[in-house]
Order: sequence, then structure tokens, then C-alpha cells
Amino acid sequence: MNNILSFDDISDLNVSLPGILTCQAGCVLENLSLYLADRDYIMPLDLGAKGSCQIGGNVATNAGGLRLLRYGSLHGTVLGLEVVLADGRVLDCLATLRKDNTGYDLKQLFIGSEGTLGVITAVSVLCPRKPRSVNVVFLGCETFEQLLKTFQLCRGMLGEILSAFEFLDSECMRLLNTHLKLPNPISDCPFYIVIETSGSDPDHDAQKLHNFLEEAMTSLLVTDGTVATEDAKIKALWSMRERVTEALTHDGFTYKYDISLPVERIYQLVTDMRQHLGNRAKSVVGYGHVGDGNLHLNITTPAKDPAVLAAIEPFVFEWTANFQGSISAEHGLGLKKRNYIYYSKPSQAVALMGNIKAMLDPKGILNPYKTLPDNL
Amino acid sequence: MNNILSFDDISDLNVSLPGILTCQAGCVLENLSLYLADRDYIMPLDLGAKGSCQIGGNVATNAGGLRLLRYGSLHGTVLGLEVVLADGRVLDCLATLRKDNTGYDLKQLFIGSEGTLGVITAVSVLCPRKPRSVNVVFLGCETFEQLLKTFQLCRGMLGEILSAFEFLDSECMRLLNTHLKLPNPISDCPFYIVIETSGSDPDHDAQKLHNFLEEAMTSLLVTDGTVATEDAKIKALWSMRERVTEALTHDGFTYKYDISLPVERIYQLVTDMRQHLGNRAKSVVGYGHVGDGNLHLNITTPAKDPAVLAAIEPFVFEWTANFQGSISAEHGLGLKKRNYIYYSKPSQAVALMGNIKAMLDPKGILNPYKTLPDNL
Repeated sequence: MNNILSFDDISDLNVSLPGILTCQAGCVLENLSLYLADRDYIMPLDLGAKGSCQIGGNVATNAGGLRLLRYGSLHGTVLGLEVVLADGRVLDCLATLRKDNTGYDLKQLFIGSEGTLGVITAVSVLCPRKPRSVNVVFLGCETFEQLLKTFQLCRGMLGEILSAFEFLDSECMRLLNTHLKLPNPISDCPFYIVIETSGSDPDHDAQKLHNFLEEAMTSLLVTDGTVATEDAKIKALWSMRERVTEALTHDGFTYKYDISLPVERIYQLVTDMRQHLGNRAKSVVGYGHVGDGNLHLNITTPAKDPAVLAAIEPFVFEWTANFQGSISAEHGLGLKKRNYIYYSKPSQAVALMGNIKAMLDPKGILNPYKTLPDNL
Repeated sequence: MNNILSFDDISDLNVSLPGILTCQAGCVLENLSLYLADRDYIMPLDLGAKGSCQIGGNVATNAGGLRLLRYGSLHGTVLGLEVVLADGRVLDCLATLRKDNTGYDLKQLFIGSEGTLGVITAVSVLCPRKPRSVNVVFLGCETFEQLLKTFQLCRGMLGEILSAFEFLDSECMRLLNTHLKLPNPISDCPFYIVIETSGSDPDHDAQKLHNFLEEAMTSLLVTDGTVATEDAKIKALWSMRERVTEALTHDGFTYKYDISLPVERIYQLVTDMRQHLGNRAKSVVGYGHVGDGNLHLNITTPAKDPAVLAAIEPFVFEWTANFQGSISAEHGLGLKKRNYIYYSKPSQAVALMGNIKAMLDPKGILNPYKTLPDNL
């Protein structure tokens, strides 16, 4: 279950187009990335868990990750799936075509259904070309409003080479310093931004980045920053963002929330939660994918505390629903959040999901007690 | 039904992010494009029919078009839908979030289902920033193999600014000359390419284009070419590709096929069809979206001729199925092609489509006799 089945196939012409990989579901994401790197391509998704997660699981959970801003979601990049249905039949939708409008796009049903409608056994995916030039910038901002204005400026000035716009707050930085001994690469600020560019011309990319940084500094949107062009420093800067989760595990018991909101609201939830919990929480931190309106809100207490949990939930879900957000941006509902689905989906939609489940898995044998609420 | 409902909404911060348009289904695509242009955004799709087609229909048919190569399909760019179901209930999936993994992604069911599962009444869509610089090149190639190698070269050298790679053959050019009096902008060649770049920096884009053209000429991949940077010439070059359909209507009765194939096969179907039909056809022409492996194969006869139709079908469908292609890349199955669905989809998949139809429209009142075959 971890074999690559094909990657393009017009070797007789000595061209490698258009970058379509077909593989079994058990392939580890990082192995696929390494395979593609040799062929001048990359996977359209990248996650912190790449070393262990498998592509079948990535598709089943509609994993988001660090490249979504640039390459879009798996609903757009997955071209085909092979799925084993509840009755044991194999559904072959393993097309390798960019365009196919012959009937309903069945594979979409299985992307993000967390294994509750079928078991994905093979995947074909459209892979972008490997960029020739990658740069990472780490910046500091005084306010979240300035951070958003920086995002707007960089969307305009970096344009097509922008590949990530991530943020962390000063509380994240404190945890990185305290628990992982990672020093702040710039001066202390309330907010930090990680911007990545990926392009095809190193000189052009460097110039775009230079122009953007000059404008961001001159207009006082950012107060400090550092740029990385070599691999080692790029990795070091990315680790400030990627290792926040690890730092949290050292801070205490962690309550994790993965929220989608209109982008201008995402930090307001952190400050409201901080105020709401007061000294009942040890740390309340916010980080995530600004570009996708996706906040990772994490709260720690010295030990697991049902009273604190009761103070967080349903407060966090009600707050999110109030701004038409999603209570699960990329992690899925799984076992723990399935009964909160009504905060993000109207009852009619949930009922239709129940109908689909009943149609595809009438005996309820596929990943039971997941995704859909008890009352269905 | 043709109102724009919202476009972002953080005007209090004086930022316009992240480019999410919500509108009623009856909005004409071109009107949406004009509305967005004033706000420095574009629609993620563009079609020849933009002046009359409506966004609800675009989504219902999963329209592809000229920007798919760059911005991907509507399965990736549509963020939310409002749909009226067969029983009259309104299904509200009109989210405006880039990420939402709370249950099954129901809106995907309706994208490309040609109105057979529900009537789309509103759409929210993620819109790209308007490029600051657009260039178009018109090139000539001696062989289709050289055309594919040119595509590979340009994917590498134009990278992130490549926004279209289209082709037409010399037969298309003959029809443009004869019926529309459009002169060939370059010298006569067996194949012509239209390449479009869209980027954020005019100087960088011009330099990338210059480097690519120099390499393509030096390595003898292309034999002639012309570049356009001003609007009028850009439009003139694009019309060579966009007006082929119009030229065909003057040539006679037209048999139209919209085929997806592995990219290295797409022209082989044209030559095989030409040979197969011999002098029974007036013209057999090929054009389309090379970047997406999408061929528009068109055949004309002086008048409608059932014998010629019988020679074309099922030959064209069998040929396509033999190479795992799709018999409808972007046009959909509608009334005429629904019974050919088995050439591109296994019977199990078609049966599952029937189950979905029965679940959502048990009385069969939504766009009957479309998309699904008679035997369901």
C-alpha cells in the first residue's frame, strides 16, 4: 500500500508533463515529496507531520497545511481516488485528467469525510513544479491590524510568488524561548509573521522581496525583520512557526482549537478568550495561517481541568458561530467535535450528510462514531 | 437573482482581503469581472461566453475555460453555495471561508451536476488579485512534439506567471482566414500556440518572457512568433484562439467534441479522425487547452449527415476510452452525451451517481433527461 503507481508517462518524448502523481494510499507524504523533488516537482501540500502522515489520510481528512494559500485545497488538486466501499466493492475514480465533466464528481465525497464513507486506497494528485528560489522572512508587528495591512501589502507586491503568510503571537514566542530555548531572531514584538516566497527566478524574487520589505518598513507596518535565503536559516525561521505545538506540550495540558474566521476576526478570539479565562489558564496563545483565515487557538493549564474545559466550551464554539466561522478549519470533527457540528452547519446540511452516510454505509461499519453527530 | 451580496467586508481597516465574492446565481460572468476589476481582483474563470453566461450556470456545469491552468477548477475556488433542493427546501452552504472541515463538503455535489441535484441560487467564490502585467505571445511550431516541448520549457522558464497555454492547428487558421478574414499574425506553420502571462511586475514578466522566447527560438522549438503587451494587440492575438468556434459555424454543419486526454495524446486523435473520415468530412480541426490536456475536436460537413455522424461516433468515444480520457472535459454530458457516460466512468460509479440522484431528487423533477444515462 505504499507504492508509487505512476508519475506522468511521456518519457519517450523526454518531457515530464503535466506533473500527475498516482500512488497507493499508504505512501508517507515526505517520501512522495522526496520522490518528486528528484523530478523537479513538489507535492501541493506540506504539513508538520509529513514524516509520518500518509497521503490516504491526508485526503480523507482534507488536510490543509502550509501550501494551501498558494496551491489551494485538495478538493482542487486531487484528480482521482480509488475507494473501497462499505460493501467491499472497489470504486475506481482514479482518473489522471485535469478536466472531466462526465457525471457527478464522486471523489469529492470522500475528500474530508474522515473514512466514514469509504476507505481510500489510491490517489492521483496534480503536483506543482519545484520552485527554483525560496525565501523566508520573519517580521515583527505592533498590532494585528498592522499585520493584516502587511498581508494586504505583500499580496500586492509579492503577488504570484507569495507561498505562505503565517503568524504567531508573543505568547507563542515566550513558550518557544522558555521550553525549547529557541531565541527570538528579531526584537520583541506583539506579533510575528513568517512569509515565504517561491518563484522561478532568484533575482526577480529577491527584488520583489526587497521592494516589499522597504515599503513595509517605510510605512511603519513592521518594526523589525530578518530574511533567509539559505536552507539552514530558512529551516530555522520556519521552526519558530512549526515548533509552537511542541513548545505547548511542555507548557502543560493543552486544549486545542482549529478555527476558521473572516481574517479580520481571527485574533479577536484570542484576546476575548484570554480575558474570558483570566488566571484560570496558564497560557492562551494564537498562531496559524493568516492567509487562509485559519487560527490555531491553544490554551494550557498545569493539569487537565474539567472546570477550565467547561469555561472554554461551548464559549469558543459560540464565539466562532457568531462570526460565521468554522469550528474545524482543517483538523476535522473526528470523535470529539462531531456533536458541535451544528455551530458551523445548518441542521438541513447535517441531515443530508446523514442521508449520504446511510446510502454509502447503511450498517455504519466505516469509522463509526466519527464526523457525524450522535443524533443522526 | 443578479445582485452582488458581498465582497470582503473589512473596510473599517481599509484592507480588502482575502478576495471573497458572494453573489446571486443570475449574475453575468462579465459583470462580475467588471465589478472586481474596479476593486483590483479578477474572477478565477474566464470563458468566451462571459458576456451572457451566468455564474450559477458556470458552477452547475463546472465550467473550465481559459484560466483553469493557473487558478484551478471551480471545485477548488468555489467556497460556498446556496441550493434549492427538489423538495423546495433551501440548503445553505454559502460559507465564505477558505477552510472548513466540519462534515462532508456538500457543495461539491452540486458543482458540475448540471442542475440535476438542485438549483444553485447563490455562490461565493475566491477571487485572485488582478495582475499588474499581462502579455500574450503567438508562436508557430512544426510538430506537436515541439509544441509539447515548448510547453515544458515555458512551464520551467515562465513558472508562476504562466496563465494560459492554448493551441490551434493550421486547419483552424485556414478557417479563420477564409471565413472571418483574420490574417495570420505570423508565418504559416502546422501548429500555433497562444501563451499568456499574468504577473505583478511588468519588468520581471517581460524579462522572463524574453528569456523564454530566446531559448525557444535558439533551440528551434518554435519557428516564428509575435508578442503583445498592449490591450488591443493582446485582444487581437486572443481572438485567433477564441474565434475558431465562430469560424466553424461558417464552414458548415459542425460536430463538436470536448475531450480530455493525457497531454501527449491530444493531437493524435485529430490526425486519426482525419484519416478515419477521409473525404467524408469537409474540415477536421483541433484546438484547445494544452495545459489542461483538453482538446476541442471539431468536424464539419456541408450539411448535417447521419452517415458521417455514424462514422464519428462511437469511434471518437472508443478512441478516448482507449487512452483513459474523458469524453466530456468541460462541456458536461447534458442531453446528447449522457448515454456515452460508460466510456469514461465505470458502471459502479454511474450506479452510485444514480443513487445520489434518487436520494436528492426521488421524483426526477430536476433537469430531467440530463447527465445520467437512460438505463438508470
